[in-house]
Amino acid sequence: MVKKEIRVIGIDDSPFDKFREKEALVVGVMTRGGQFVEGILSCKVGIDGKDATKKFIEIINNSKFRPQLQCIFLNGIAVAGFNVIDIHELSKKTNIPVVVIIRQNPDIEKIKSTLKGLGQNEKIKLIEMAGAITKIGDIYVQYAGIEIKRLEKMLKIVCTRSNIPEPLRLAHIIATGIVKGESRGKA
Amino acid sequence: MVKKEIRVIGIDDSPFDKFREKEALVVGVMTRGGQFVEGILSCKVGIDGKDATKKFIEIINNSKFRPQLQCIFLNGIAVAGFNVIDIHELSKKTNIPVVVIIRQNPDIEKIKSTLKGLGQNEKIKLIEMAGAITKIGDIYVQYAGIEIKRLEKMLKIVCTRSNIPEPLRLAHIIATGIVKGESRGKA
Repeated sequence: MVKKEIRVIGIDDSPFDKFREKEALVVGVMTRGGQFVEGILSCKVGIDGKDATKKFIEIINNSKFRPQLQCIFLNGIAVAGFNVIDIHELSKKTNIPVVVIIRQNPDIEKIKSTLKGLGQNEKIKLIEMAGAITKIGDIYVQYAGIEIKRLEKMLKIVCTRSNIPEPLRLAHIIATGIVKGESRGKA
Repeated sequence: MVKKEIRVIGIDDSPFDKFREKEALVVGVMTRGGQFVEGILSCKVGIDGKDATKKFIEIINNSKFRPQLQCIFLNGIAVAGFNVIDIHELSKKTNIPVVVIIRQNPDIEKIKSTLKGLGQNEKIKLIEMAGAITKIGDIYVQYAGIEIKRLEKMLKIVCTRSNIPEPLRLAHIIATGIVKGESRGKA
């Protein structure tokens, strides 16, 4: 059973200029019951870097929220360009399920070939290790530390305002609004 | 009559180190019906500066949200230390009511004497011009461009999660979380 008042976190990155900046702002929003905002986490990760998994483990494990968190939602498997997240490592080290939300089925082969061209084979491995991309309703997911049936139930509770989890929608609006000066959510 | 789906903005500043920084981040959160987050604005203002009124007018008038906004809520009459806001000017130039929310009745005389010591008599004038501090329920307000009866009705709609307007609660959590890395709202 999934409680209605479940606490989850949604993490998204902000827009960045890869020619002028080295790091991008990442924002995590914790909600209760897919609606009420209880807290905000933030950190910076290297653009096209390798530090996102480690940074996310740090901010979540150092957070007062951690004992209540039932799921970590990510907007795609990479942040700040090609800073690919090891979702199994993130789930294992935080002891919280991790779910990658993908709005459109991505062209994985194209991403892999770009990474291959950059000689970043370890990132290709991380993407493959994250498992098959599964369709649930209108969206696609990859996941670690959770069973698909529980995930389906959880999504019904936390997708209160759109087809993606509400904390992820908010993390996107906030990360963009802070860096760009204004953002508007897709209502 | 005040509509349940009313759109309002709450603006708050972030913590800062006045010995190391010159500007502080300010975050504006727009909600509909005192709950649903529709967008985020942000800007930086000078610590103990004089630019907050002008900056707020700019970000609000340049915002896509402006035509729908029915009220601007501020957390106290100053941001970033003693960057005092001219609430009549802000209301006039945006054509939107402005309401200063004060959790505890402040020691105005002490603030005035500090400003006098700094030779900033124009800021003392702004505070005086903002009008009498009025108690509504558990909180205190100063206001411009709105009648007290309409304000009372509006507060009942937008104070959904605490005794202060929800967008102001969110602006505080976000501004703190972005700068400090973590913040937790008073639930």
